[in-house]
Amino acid sequence: MTRVAACQISLDIENPAQNFARANKAIADSIVQGAQIIVLPELTNSGYAFTSVAEVQERSTTLDGELISHWKEIAHQSDVVIVAGLALSVDSRLYNASVVIDKSGLLGWYSKVHLFGDEHQFFKAGEKPPLVVNTSHGRIETMVYYDIEFPEWVRLAMLDRAVLLAIPTNWPNLGQLIHGTPMEAVRVQAAASVNKMVAIAADRSGAERGHSWVSSSVITDFEGNIKAIAHRESEDDIQILVADVELPTDTSITPKNDVRKDRKPDLYNGILKY
Amino acid sequence: MTRVAACQISLDIENPAQNFARANKAIADSIVQGAQIIVLPELTNSGYAFTSVAEVQERSTTLDGELISHWKEIAHQSDVVIVAGLALSVDSRLYNASVVIDKSGLLGWYSKVHLFGDEHQFFKAGEKPPLVVNTSHGRIETMVYYDIEFPEWVRLAMLDRAVLLAIPTNWPNLGQLIHGTPMEAVRVQAAASVNKMVAIAADRSGAERGHSWVSSSVITDFEGNIKAIAHRESEDDIQILVADVELPTDTSITPKNDVRKDRKPDLYNGILKY
Repeated sequence: MTRVAACQISLDIENPAQNFARANKAIADSIVQGAQIIVLPELTNSGYAFTSVAEVQERSTTLDGELISHWKEIAHQSDVVIVAGLALSVDSRLYNASVVIDKSGLLGWYSKVHLFGDEHQFFKAGEKPPLVVNTSHGRIETMVYYDIEFPEWVRLAMLDRAVLLAIPTNWPNLGQLIHGTPMEAVRVQAAASVNKMVAIAADRSGAERGHSWVSSSVITDFEGNIKAIAHRESEDDIQILVADVELPTDTSITPKNDVRKDRKPDLYNGILKY
Repeated sequence: MTRVAACQISLDIENPAQNFARANKAIADSIVQGAQIIVLPELTNSGYAFTSVAEVQERSTTLDGELISHWKEIAHQSDVVIVAGLALSVDSRLYNASVVIDKSGLLGWYSKVHLFGDEHQFFKAGEKPPLVVNTSHGRIETMVYYDIEFPEWVRLAMLDRAVLLAIPTNWPNLGQLIHGTPMEAVRVQAAASVNKMVAIAADRSGAERGHSWVSSSVITDFEGNIKAIAHRESEDDIQILVADVELPTDTSITPKNDVRKDRKPDLYNGILKY
């Protein structure tokens, strides 16, 4: 079994230092609880509700900057995997990114491909597949929020043999109906289930410039069953979900069925159309 | 609004006449309740737990046989759409099929592509995309049970401009954990949500030769919210779910986002790999 954590943090675009401090506290608390894989929200360093590119730039992190260096040190010391959404500045371009760090260092960074709302005003969209990397705790994939609403995207991660899907997210509260499990979590459950992958979505809280959030971080097993889900009404600055999950060793779902081998890709050409 | 019905029927492979009678009663009751689109389970005419091809053959229906002729007459008289799973014999081949009938007649038939368990011993797998047809009550897609666990397949239906997904199913009870909404229904919710389509899954009940069923028929709106779901413990021979649903007129989900237009098919080539 692998112990995993989803850290739901109250972020504030007006207070990047506080965001960093809360992220660090959440990581430390997760380690105390024995977590081996720790997932943080989308744009953990910056918050979300930008009004200008300058605001993104000021709050962004570089690949060799203090924040990532600090997390590399923590990952090295405690042998944990940290996956976090960050406003990332690379070669003077700004990305809504997710990084994967383990004891050996920064394993890679991914830039959100499917941008939501006004994000294209602030970020360059990614052009690469979901990032899948071998970590000290399994083969992990990361994508960011709206990406997961494109089942093709999750499928690419499964086809690249990922066993765990780590999703930093800022799920916007758009006034959607929520009775029972929020649809944001339902989509994560289904993504896990049809791809036989463990899934961890780390959402955020903290109202910000008129925006609010579903605040429904969730951890599922590889059948899509919910192992832990956030209390949406909580006003905690930090809410940590912890669960023990078995990572899948194959993609079979019964002795005679396999979600990978039962695919019929020869018939899927239409997917490449708009 | 469109009134739709999912008919959950107790089927028995030993009693095809009873299956037909129950299906007819469910259709009649749905019409009394004002349903315009009526979905029946997978293999409504035959039951599921075959032990030989001869058993399938004996219970199968032909395109010009009594059963389909009768339903064409009902659809014509009452201006309803009937979607039903059938063991279908066409040109001496046996298919796990779904038919779509409206007041103008049989609009098409679909053969399940993703076969489950031992089904390949009894049926020829389909080789055509999901069936999408214009009916007197909207542009409807049909696929059968395990097909829906392949998100590529549902996507093809959305890309072909379907607004309603009709899924005849026999969801096997494999001893899976069920707390809260069964995963079978969760997958339907997510399929509806990420494709902005109404979804209707008609499951079956009735233990049969050691097989039992989840019996969790479900109707969702185009956001994936559950409008009606079967009482799993019910021992009714017929359980009819009825709901009023709005059919979508486009694929936008916010003023700035659209589940169709936000796709990045140029980056989805990997989907065509095994």
